[in-house]
Amino acid sequence: MVSPKDFVGRDVLSILDFNREELDYIMDVADEVERNMDAYRGLLSGKTMAILFFEPSTRTRLSFEAAMKKLGGLTLDMGEPTRASIEKGETLTDTIRVVQNYADLIVLRHPKEGAAKLAAEVADIPVINGGSGAEEHPTQAMLDLYTIRRCKKRIDGLRIGILGDLKYGRTTHSLAYALSNYDVKLYLVSPELLRMRREVLRHISGRIEVQELESIDQVLPELDVLYVTRIQKERFVDESEYLKVKGSYRVTIDTLSKMKKDAIIMHPLPRVDEIAIEVDSTPNAVYFKQVYYGLLTRMSIISLVLGALSGK
Amino acid sequence: MVSPKDFVGRDVLSILDFNREELDYIMDVADEVERNMDAYRGLLSGKTMAILFFEPSTRTRLSFEAAMKKLGGLTLDMGEPTRASIEKGETLTDTIRVVQNYADLIVLRHPKEGAAKLAAEVADIPVINGGSGAEEHPTQAMLDLYTIRRCKKRIDGLRIGILGDLKYGRTTHSLAYALSNYDVKLYLVSPELLRMRREVLRHISGRIEVQELESIDQVLPELDVLYVTRIQKERFVDESEYLKVKGSYRVTIDTLSKMKKDAIIMHPLPRVDEIAIEVDSTPNAVYFKQVYYGLLTRMSIISLVLGALSGK
Amino acid sequence: MVSPKDFVGRDVLSILDFNREELDYIMDVADEVERNMDAYRGLLSGKTMAILFFEPSTRTRLSFEAAMKKLGGLTLDMGEPTRASIEKGETLTDTIRVVQNYADLIVLRHPKEGAAKLAAEVADIPVINGGSGAEEHPTQAMLDLYTIRRCKKRIDGLRIGILGDLKYGRTTHSLAYALSNYDVKLYLVSPELLRMRREVLRHISGRIEVQELESIDQVLPELDVLYVTRIQKERFVDESEYLKVKGSYRVTIDTLSKMKKDAIIMHPLPRVDEIAIEVDSTPNAVYFKQVYYGLLTRMSIISLVLGALSGK
Repeated sequence: MVSPKDFVGRDVLSILDFNREELDYIMDVADEVERNMDAYRGLLSGKTMAILFFEPSTRTRLSFEAAMKKLGGLTLDMGEPTRASIEKGETLTDTIRVVQNYADLIVLRHPKEGAAKLAAEVADIPVINGGSGAEEHPTQAMLDLYTIRRCKKRIDGLRIGILGDLKYGRTTHSLAYALSNYDVKLYLVSPELLRMRREVLRHISGRIEVQELESIDQVLPELDVLYVTRIQKERFVDESEYLKVKGSYRVTIDTLSKMKKDAIIMHPLPRVDEIAIEVDSTPNAVYFKQVYYGLLTRMSIISLVLGALSGK
Repeated sequence: MVSPKDFVGRDVLSILDFNREELDYIMDVADEVERNMDAYRGLLSGKTMAILFFEPSTRTRLSFEAAMKKLGGLTLDMGEPTRASIEKGETLTDTIRVVQNYADLIVLRHPKEGAAKLAAEVADIPVINGGSGAEEHPTQAMLDLYTIRRCKKRIDGLRIGILGDLKYGRTTHSLAYALSNYDVKLYLVSPELLRMRREVLRHISGRIEVQELESIDQVLPELDVLYVTRIQKERFVDESEYLKVKGSYRVTIDTLSKMKKDAIIMHPLPRVDEIAIEVDSTPNAVYFKQVYYGLLTRMSIISLVLGALSGK
Repeated sequence: MVSPKDFVGRDVLSILDFNREELDYIMDVADEVERNMDAYRGLLSGKTMAILFFEPSTRTRLSFEAAMKKLGGLTLDMGEPTRASIEKGETLTDTIRVVQNYADLIVLRHPKEGAAKLAAEVADIPVINGGSGAEEHPTQAMLDLYTIRRCKKRIDGLRIGILGDLKYGRTTHSLAYALSNYDVKLYLVSPELLRMRREVLRHISGRIEVQELESIDQVLPELDVLYVTRIQKERFVDESEYLKVKGSYRVTIDTLSKMKKDAIIMHPLPRVDEIAIEVDSTPNAVYFKQVYYGLLTRMSIISLVLGALSGK
């Protein structure tokens, strides 16, 4: 049986560090947070979270900041990375050793793979990986899971498509790992060039049914969930190749017309034009609700890691 | 009769959305806030304001942030616009839909006219226009009105000069609209090139006595209030033209000597050299007090819009 | 006898403004803050500190922000200086007059010497110098003193070496002044080019025993404290000169082997490579603890200046 004690002081580096029971528990607490928002308002009074983002990120930063503040905690934001610290040449290790004097928890986003792990090794306080390199984004995967559970009332038994850049999109890696804890069928749909990383595929293939495709069309009628990610122009040497791909990975009203009535469309945001604006007003579009579920999920995980729910 | 209920959930997009009774009410609440600062300290506990500034602005941002925090509310600042969001190409509409998941109120500053209106249409929560394009700056007009009321004990019956760039200066537009609710005589003093926008002039001319002038000299002895704004070099094609204009729109001790003893000098700040520093220490200079009255005004409007004053 | 009343409303511009009894008192309060952290949590509720940093500084900014927030106070950060204010050409004097409307205390960092003094003259509220030019950094000196007292249980009777750039390093000036209140022997070790400023040397020489050296080697066995600072390449015209110097001012395990067993190594941070990483894990390395002692020291000084400890 999972209990709040199991989370106290833990780092959140990879979604792989959490088993199904733990993921379910985090989601149960997110439900609880929503039901008792007022009661949670002062929960983290006297606790401080340091936000160390070495990559620009409005959305993830705001989400963590809102989560901490709504729980009554303090936030300290190191600010834009291009300035002070980096100019003066301080190592990440030293920055962590400085910052942990002010905080009870660190949220780190860093362009380099392995940075979160390194930080966690150095820090005496828990470190949450807020996205590192092209690798992982564990709290995004938790909120994606939670969005599915909220919108579909279950995760087991679903057929889920992940569309777009599965090679560099760190959210897709973490989500695939997370879903492999459940009884789902996963369709990985991407251009040849941007196929799911081999190590992720290897891990999940042994656990759930996975199918790789280059086109979404044939599986649209089966899908309960379509998770869309952006394909970046910079990934292609040949622009004509990019333009061809771009069109065929765009979700429109026409795409929806081929899907189940109650299928949901998700996206980690920001969206550029990979989902047509006309889709926004359909009940299938849940990508803005995802932001709200993300807030609840992060309130849950922060509270658990800081031990605020494991009192007598 | 105006009551706090009339403000709950309202957007603050244009000063034209508020009638005289409402403006007076906002100022009455500002008085009340000052008298009971301690009682207001926890008023907005549990409420969150998102600050979305797509244009640099230290003063307006700090004023809103201070107002919200001093009422016990939380603030979430999206930070500098040049980074994350814009780089990734997200639309304003999407940003609003994301941010409203974290907040009860949005304050938006944007370089494009119409941005605040667009945001308000999309958002499920109230939007306060913190300045949009060269158009309007409604809360600045409210604080300007309030400063006049505080310093002159009334607004009706005053003779008020607005000096400088009346074409591009958004504060002058909002202020002229605001003053047209009162029984004032307005002198609009500007170079030919920077005359008050025609649509503003048309609106206010039907309501109050207005006179346009190119020189302030002849009306100085009549004025109760002189509102000074900056004339920017960039507005002129010919630098010699700019230099000529600049000198004659500068307020000095000599200017004061031609005015009533109790006339007040206002300025939206930042000031460069359009008011001589020697004026600062006179009792006529109220432009730094204006900042404090601005804090009270914004505490008032935020409390009203969030419904914190409309309880039983 | 020093009492909390002696600090209320005072500016903190130079370490020279504080005598030994006052410095001891600030440190006593820092001890007290640590012992009763929970009791201090709401001490500054309703108070606001404005952070005006015209130079990038992650560490000092975070330390002040953490100190204020952990005492229950509000912070308002003007943000990066390159933007709004400076673009619009506002003077420091005007910025101070604006900001003091929102705050009870200003912390200022500025590249120009004399800026903090100017700000204090203009402001009606206390100003803390968070570092100005190459001049002074008084709260850093206080935390350095406190670190020594915490780690060595006393200050009197110690032999202390300050190593590195004693000409441009503002922390070394303030520290030397601060130490001259105690019965210490001071070794000032630097390249000829970067010798301690003459006015500092003149001041402290009359009060304590001081010796200037170019090499640390001969005094290593005597030292109780070694305070290391960075030597910047830009100070040297000739790169070969820099490289020579750099090597001989680097602290390594070998350096430690020549020192007393219980000597401590301090550094104001950020460190680049002037202390070898291998030193970090020795009990002699206290430079990360210094950060924590800095938090306590700043909590102390802020509380004192704001009069929160001088109640009935």
